Amino acid sequence: MAKENKISMEHGAGGQQMQSLIGEIILKNFTNTSAGSVGLDALDDGATIELDRDFLNNNKKAELVMTTDSHVVKPIFFPGGDIGKVAVCGAINDLAVMGARPLAVSSGMIIPEGFSITDLEKVVHSMNDALVEIGVPLITGDTKTVEGTALDSIIINIAAIGICDAPVRDCGLQIGDKMIVSGYIADHGMALLTKREGFEFNSDLESDTAPLWKMIEPLLAVQTQAGERAVTAMKDPTRGGVADSLNEMAQKSNVGIRIYEEKLPIREAVFTSCEMLGLDPLEIANEGKAVIGVRPECAKAVLKLLKSHPYGKDAAIIGEVTEEKPGKVILISELGSTRYVDVPTGDPIPRVC
Amino acid sequence: MAKENKISMEHGAGGQQMQSLIGEIILKNFTNTSAGSVGLDALDDGATIELDRDFLNNNKKAELVMTTDSHVVKPIFFPGGDIGKVAVCGAINDLAVMGARPLAVSSGMIIPEGFSITDLEKVVHSMNDALVEIGVPLITGDTKTVEGTALDSIIINIAAIGICDAPVRDCGLQIGDKMIVSGYIADHGMALLTKREGFEFNSDLESDTAPLWKMIEPLLAVQTQAGERAVTAMKDPTRGGVADSLNEMAQKSNVGIRIYEEKLPIREAVFTSCEMLGLDPLEIANEGKAVIGVRPECAKAVLKLLKSHPYGKDAAIIGEVTEEKPGKVILISELGSTRYVDVPTGDPIPRVC
Repeated sequence: MAKENKISMEHGAGGQQMQSLIGEIILKNFTNTSAGSVGLDALDDGATIELDRDFLNNNKKAELVMTTDSHVVKPIFFPGGDIGKVAVCGAINDLAVMGARPLAVSSGMIIPEGFSITDLEKVVHSMNDALVEIGVPLITGDTKTVEGTALDSIIINIAAIGICDAPVRDCGLQIGDKMIVSGYIADHGMALLTKREGFEFNSDLESDTAPLWKMIEPLLAVQTQAGERAVTAMKDPTRGGVADSLNEMAQKSNVGIRIYEEKLPIREAVFTSCEMLGLDPLEIANEGKAVIGVRPECAKAVLKLLKSHPYGKDAAIIGEVTEEKPGKVILISELGSTRYVDVPTGDPIPRVC
Repeated sequence: MAKENKISMEHGAGGQQMQSLIGEIILKNFTNTSAGSVGLDALDDGATIELDRDFLNNNKKAELVMTTDSHVVKPIFFPGGDIGKVAVCGAINDLAVMGARPLAVSSGMIIPEGFSITDLEKVVHSMNDALVEIGVPLITGDTKTVEGTALDSIIINIAAIGICDAPVRDCGLQIGDKMIVSGYIADHGMALLTKREGFEFNSDLESDTAPLWKMIEPLLAVQTQAGERAVTAMKDPTRGGVADSLNEMAQKSNVGIRIYEEKLPIREAVFTSCEMLGLDPLEIANEGKAVIGVRPECAKAVLKLLKSHPYGKDAAIIGEVTEEKPGKVILISELGSTRYVDVPTGDPIPRVC
């Protein structure tokens, strides 16, 4: 039986072994590696992004958008994804919900000694698949190794750069806006928990991990009759779930949000297992969803666009923005009773991303 | 005695405890947190960088430069610096050696449960001090916590964005160029090793960790009589040391490099302890040095500029670029014998950055 290749400390030493790891496992598995005159292939100290002068000239207020996300998800392979996919999607989705077209990403990997090189290749393939789907290059990276006793699994940081004419802010909600969620909630956290704990039930549940830029891009062009952007605020509800995203948007915008239990898209299986485990699906992480505030007259148009994309086909209007109770989120149950949706205080499922 | 505050898993949960960690420990300790309309204070999904249109209009080929560096240095506090300082300097110096003015950085922290919050504050202060020194804002960040059994110490990723009209490449060396190193080599690795192993000798040795942009910026303006940039190639010799940087530059530029042992700036204490431990100072990491290729007629002017900056006061011309032995680096000893300086194959001092 062939001995499985493992990462050794020398793979992080900055010499020949590191060059071969980077060359064989990382470089050759990425399809797009350049956004300017110096790309990943150059293995220089960084990489460049050419500025699109047509875009800049047409958009007087063009701004770059930068985001960073480190991923420590455990287990690293789970139904519907792996740490590579979730790392790329996490960063890209942060740009997307700010209304920014992704230009390029960087990768920073920390790999424990003894980590399987086969697993590393699988992870790298997933990163590449997600990047290819949205046409974004990985242009620069860094690889560190640590002793196997120092770290239990691979950690991946993705930083991403995008560009927009005006960012979509968390604080942009206006009274009367409709609140939309782009599909079933809590799938990622529950799929991960099911896999991690080896539960028998829901073993077919899959994470929703997905890169959302192509779903979100057309929404940004929708305008009110007054010529204003229909989308007023947007977040991707990862750690802390929809509950955390809604509270942040309500607080930052200084408005109230009212949502309706009957309108929340929750899979039967997710709902049942949350009940059984005493978890609130509103607090469970998603990795392929957006929570969107939209001017009321454009809500149907935005919903239609969302539903026309595979990642948004189960999108729903779940509530609206109110003048009352600024900074608070209120849930109206199917029977008409109301409760505050609080900012989550604990971590129902740790290491979810 | 007051109980020392420790990081708990809830600090990474994306809820109230995380907000307070970010607010109390991170946000309030950074001086510059904005580079555009959305800064760190907004705690949005990312942050924006306003594009300097005057710069863009004056530089037809303006490109962004992106770099990323994860830091796993151990111990996290060492003479002359700590993981926070080395993380910021590592990323900034990668931009600087590409000739890019830093615009903004992001921070991605992974913190093990049980990590001292006092230590976290010290690290954050060091990050801020280095950023303030060069006037660069930290505009966005991400914080993850993992079980104390999963990771032995804090890990910090810094991604950085800069801008330049034309990047300085590793591959730009030309026959006849002079090779300059900006000061004493191997201080960082040897200071770290001394501290880690508790050696009695050299206990006053300090890491050279420093942000080099202000030292490098004036060099970029030096031009030959033909109006070409005097600096042809540049690297910061971190892991793998000067040996690795010179080999990369020689290989990528397809030229030979000849360096002279007697001209290498090495502290007596570093030289002696390297001899004693069987280490080659050329292979030991630096965190505040640049290796620079310069057109010969401008070498003295560049050296003079370097020497006028505190971080470059011990700069020296160490050799030149040759036509013979392309891709190879040759060391000429004080007695006139020659040997190849190879690409380092092992890791003399692991977890050095």
